[in-house]
Amino acid sequence: MSAYLQPGQVLGPDDLAQRLRQIGADRYHDRHPFHRRLHGGECRPAEVRAWALNRYYYQASIPLKDAAVLGRMTDPALRRAWRQRLVDHDGAAEGEGGIARWLRLTDALGLDRELVASCRAVLPGTRFAVDAYVRFCRERSLLEAVASSLTELFSPKIIGERVSGMLAHYDFVDQTALSYFTARPPQAERDSAFALDYVLAHADTHERQAQALGALLFKTDVLWSQLDALWLAYVEGRLPPGAWQPEQEAS
Amino acid sequence: MSAYLQPGQVLGPDDLAQRLRQIGADRYHDRHPFHRRLHGGECRPAEVRAWALNRYYYQASIPLKDAAVLGRMTDPALRRAWRQRLVDHDGAAEGEGGIARWLRLTDALGLDRELVASCRAVLPGTRFAVDAYVRFCRERSLLEAVASSLTELFSPKIIGERVSGMLAHYDFVDQTALSYFTARPPQAERDSAFALDYVLAHADTHERQAQALGALLFKTDVLWSQLDALWLAYVEGRLPPGAWQPEQEAS
Repeated sequence: MSAYLQPGQVLGPDDLAQRLRQIGADRYHDRHPFHRRLHGGECRPAEVRAWALNRYYYQASIPLKDAAVLGRMTDPALRRAWRQRLVDHDGAAEGEGGIARWLRLTDALGLDRELVASCRAVLPGTRFAVDAYVRFCRERSLLEAVASSLTELFSPKIIGERVSGMLAHYDFVDQTALSYFTARPPQAERDSAFALDYVLAHADTHERQAQALGALLFKTDVLWSQLDALWLAYVEGRLPPGAWQPEQEAS
Repeated sequence: MSAYLQPGQVLGPDDLAQRLRQIGADRYHDRHPFHRRLHGGECRPAEVRAWALNRYYYQASIPLKDAAVLGRMTDPALRRAWRQRLVDHDGAAEGEGGIARWLRLTDALGLDRELVASCRAVLPGTRFAVDAYVRFCRERSLLEAVASSLTELFSPKIIGERVSGMLAHYDFVDQTALSYFTARPPQAERDSAFALDYVLAHADTHERQAQALGALLFKTDVLWSQLDALWLAYVEGRLPPGAWQPEQEAS
């Protein structure tokens, strides 16, 4: 924290925005070796499958987090804006929305849809990190919950790298499989601009700025920790006991 | 789960006890490569420090878990038995009990006591796993909370290996530093015998047996995941952004 906010310091909005962006530059998971391996075409098909399957647990948990946040917003205008996130993830009907689009990716990777949707093959490290995020947003202040969503400021860049890298390097991935990623960047840009405005307007004391920065640091840990678990299990092959083995179950 | 309990199956108490012990044989963290490395004398001093510092967060969280469990026991006799766990960890006075003894280990390893006790240097993966355990015991049934403590059935063996291995291989570790481990096995044997009796008496339907076995599986994931995070960061040197570096801060 001291790297981003000195004791007692109160930042102006521009400086606070700069510190939040600096956290992304320092700690967002585009710096993780798994991301470089994925978009660089170095992943074995089993690694891409394991990534998509584990990441599904994160995708599927986002609306739980957003509902918890929405349920603590007393301002209808704020709720209306935040509600769009639920629409984006869950869609207007079966087969629509971000979660359904993620399943099109896991379909394309040859993963059984029931296996993916059950989340029973998810690594413990993924589960602990994602659950920590949902609970953080349920238990902490509204400011902290909103600030923790600001990793979306950095996601259009990582998504761009993923799409171009995956299309270039993996013949089992096509544009349809990646429909999640083509739909996502404008949503992330809209959502993160809204969330950033909220944080800059409400984090106006030292304590609240420390909370906002801490929430974003926490969230970068949540994302990074998921790729750490993936790396150890599926790049290095050090699977936890009972872990899912992509070679055994892919169709 | 299906490896330990078939659909619809109801086990007799002896068979249930055997399945619970089988989970330990299959998944307890004495099978983790970090444990073998630690007691085999292969750890660099920095790795032993990182292990003790991260493990402190688990030690310090145990009474939070036990208080949550105790606070849902309606039987005074049960509460009296469980209360001993708080006494064992927190002691009768400052400087006594398991947590204080763990600090004697981190002292002996040259770690700053304020740094350890603050828990600010703990890896995100450790924090997510330990917090998941505390919340599991707060939120799940009493049976599941008690069953999740049954890893203590297996701890006397791992502690014996740790003590003999650490004394033999690390000249910066002596018997005083390891006082936690010499005090712990009789407590763990008493506690786990009590918890096992409770589980065998109360897990008398298929559903409750599945819950008890699932709780113990969950707990083995909690322990394993901590060593996975430690391995990636401090054995392989793949530190998450902002992680504590033992070389920089040890006195």
